[in-house]
Amino acid sequence: METQGKVITCRAAVAWGPGEALVMEDVKVDPPQRLEVRIRILFTSICHTDLSAWKGENEAQQAYPRILGHEAAGIVESVGEGVEEMKAGDHVLPIFNGECGECRVCKREGANMCERFRIDPMNKVMVSDGKTRFFTNKDNTPIFHFLNTSTFSEYTVIHSACVVKVDPLFPLEKMSLLSCGVSTGVGAAWNVADIQPGSTVAVFGLGAVGLAVAEGARARGASKIIGIDVNPDKFPLGREVGISEFINPKESDKAVHERVRELTEGGVEYSFECAGSIEALREAFLSTHSGVGVTVLLGVHTSPKFLPIHPMELFQGRSITASTFGGFKPKTQLPFLINQCLQGVINLDFFITHQLPFHDINKAMQLLQQGKALRCLLSL
Amino acid sequence: METQGKVITCRAAVAWGPGEALVMEDVKVDPPQRLEVRIRILFTSICHTDLSAWKGENEAQQAYPRILGHEAAGIVESVGEGVEEMKAGDHVLPIFNGECGECRVCKREGANMCERFRIDPMNKVMVSDGKTRFFTNKDNTPIFHFLNTSTFSEYTVIHSACVVKVDPLFPLEKMSLLSCGVSTGVGAAWNVADIQPGSTVAVFGLGAVGLAVAEGARARGASKIIGIDVNPDKFPLGREVGISEFINPKESDKAVHERVRELTEGGVEYSFECAGSIEALREAFLSTHSGVGVTVLLGVHTSPKFLPIHPMELFQGRSITASTFGGFKPKTQLPFLINQCLQGVINLDFFITHQLPFHDINKAMQLLQQGKALRCLLSL
Repeated sequence: METQGKVITCRAAVAWGPGEALVMEDVKVDPPQRLEVRIRILFTSICHTDLSAWKGENEAQQAYPRILGHEAAGIVESVGEGVEEMKAGDHVLPIFNGECGECRVCKREGANMCERFRIDPMNKVMVSDGKTRFFTNKDNTPIFHFLNTSTFSEYTVIHSACVVKVDPLFPLEKMSLLSCGVSTGVGAAWNVADIQPGSTVAVFGLGAVGLAVAEGARARGASKIIGIDVNPDKFPLGREVGISEFINPKESDKAVHERVRELTEGGVEYSFECAGSIEALREAFLSTHSGVGVTVLLGVHTSPKFLPIHPMELFQGRSITASTFGGFKPKTQLPFLINQCLQGVINLDFFITHQLPFHDINKAMQLLQQGKALRCLLSL
Repeated sequence: METQGKVITCRAAVAWGPGEALVMEDVKVDPPQRLEVRIRILFTSICHTDLSAWKGENEAQQAYPRILGHEAAGIVESVGEGVEEMKAGDHVLPIFNGECGECRVCKREGANMCERFRIDPMNKVMVSDGKTRFFTNKDNTPIFHFLNTSTFSEYTVIHSACVVKVDPLFPLEKMSLLSCGVSTGVGAAWNVADIQPGSTVAVFGLGAVGLAVAEGARARGASKIIGIDVNPDKFPLGREVGISEFINPKESDKAVHERVRELTEGGVEYSFECAGSIEALREAFLSTHSGVGVTVLLGVHTSPKFLPIHPMELFQGRSITASTFGGFKPKTQLPFLINQCLQGVINLDFFITHQLPFHDINKAMQLLQQGKALRCLLSL
């Protein structure tokens, strides 16, 4: 390959400060080191975790300049020493929550928080050597990485533990959604809650992840899915993924959990907190039926507040847990979900509400922030 | 039967006020109503839930006069209308957390908080008709029930949903321990945490329940069991149930979770909070290895404090849950545990550290309160 082993100069959207518009500029991308992969990103979309990092909501996690982005799909440009499972030309998904396959967590069934490559919003460099692979073109300023992936760039370098190979016959633009949002939501419904047919479900927060939870619940044969959101514009979208009842917390003084209980003979079997709100968290917890209720957290909580749950409330037979990447081990389990999507069990098209060229990335950020887009697919 | 259908006058230990010595006096016990069972209690012991109710730690749960007690074994004296699974003479265990077999919870695998007969410290009367079956002999004052069972009495009336029949060949005095403490601890290890062979375990609070957790962990083949208690007198007992390392939080300024992590390459797979302390709860949570850790709550928390856990800490792959009656459905699943005890998998004898006649019940209460007894078996 012409570019193999060489520095590549390409376009990237660089974050220079909290909330500042991303700057589309030339950056240098180093070759992949041992066990790393350099990828030509073809499609990327934006997730709320990118928005949160862009705004710098958590000061301790701020790092500039930085290349954000983690939900994407691309083609391997070249591989570093020791990479045997992939080669140049392979179609791949970057995964922010990797799988080394060798640690205590990877070896355990039902666990997906790999000790070395799990999601780590504090990390801003390559895990291998603590350095960056990105530099500004104009003066070689190091540019920080984000969530093991940094996909807002035509080329990126990712450790092979954070890359999943996909069949080249699969439509890569849709597959990109499986590198974060849709997998996170569907997996929370399938792996973490393990929704049973005929069950009732409440989803708090109807962004892409919440709607992916609903889609997963629908596919599992849930008998009733209740959607909760303060933005009623989300309700028509919700209907398409099987949500039959909607609650707008602003429309009544009655607590949401009371309204959910009225609709479900005492509460749902499963509730999902996808809003990142501590109030929604408590309502979600109380919305489940005592004795059988499971609440799964997916939202990012930036408030310093502790869980608003008393220890004895856990003894009512309601449990609460959190889910990262839907509980999927990316290398081991994502191929199953990909197949389910190709078979039409999960409708991926639904989630792509907008498409824009990469250089319009700031417009795409706004669409998501304003709640107008589920996923705006950017073509690089 | 001579007593069937008639009021029985017998001895009971009655609580007349918070922290006041129980009064051994004659009480009248009504015949069992529809689906109820009247039981001759032969053995009872005392659990911390009795102590807590006796002291009136939760004001909202206070009710006097009351007959406490829930860990016991006895023989059916007579049954009410509609009871077909038991008859006079059957050996039985009262169970404070019943199983109606018909509700949404009972029909669900892995759930044991029956909608009608689950543990309810607020309830002080029979579920069937909201009345009591106990009255003082001297002036017919109604005496309240406790935890569906009220076993500090020679005779008690219990709904059949809260009674488990056992083989008359089994040693009833030992079986009484399975009606609460030992089942709660072993079940937390087996059903709720589902401890795998070779795992590491930390138990916070080495009373009977904590030691039963350790015994359950030992039986499951745990590779290392760490016991934590502020009372070093518990450590020799702990060794008998497989605890190999002890931590006294008072002996070092270093946080307990740091000491547990040092002993276990980053944390245990399972931790159990059996102390009822909010500080122990957080240490137990942090003692588990991220990515795989499960914390099970068994202790009763009387403080109004919420869980001292941030929502994002759940995303580190540590989960927390609570266990009532060890997750056992009493009628469906307790027979399995009874068999395991008879086969010697679980050593019941170990837990009986003292034996006294029923009229010495106040002495037995003191032994438990002072941490001197695991279980003091009272013979009625």
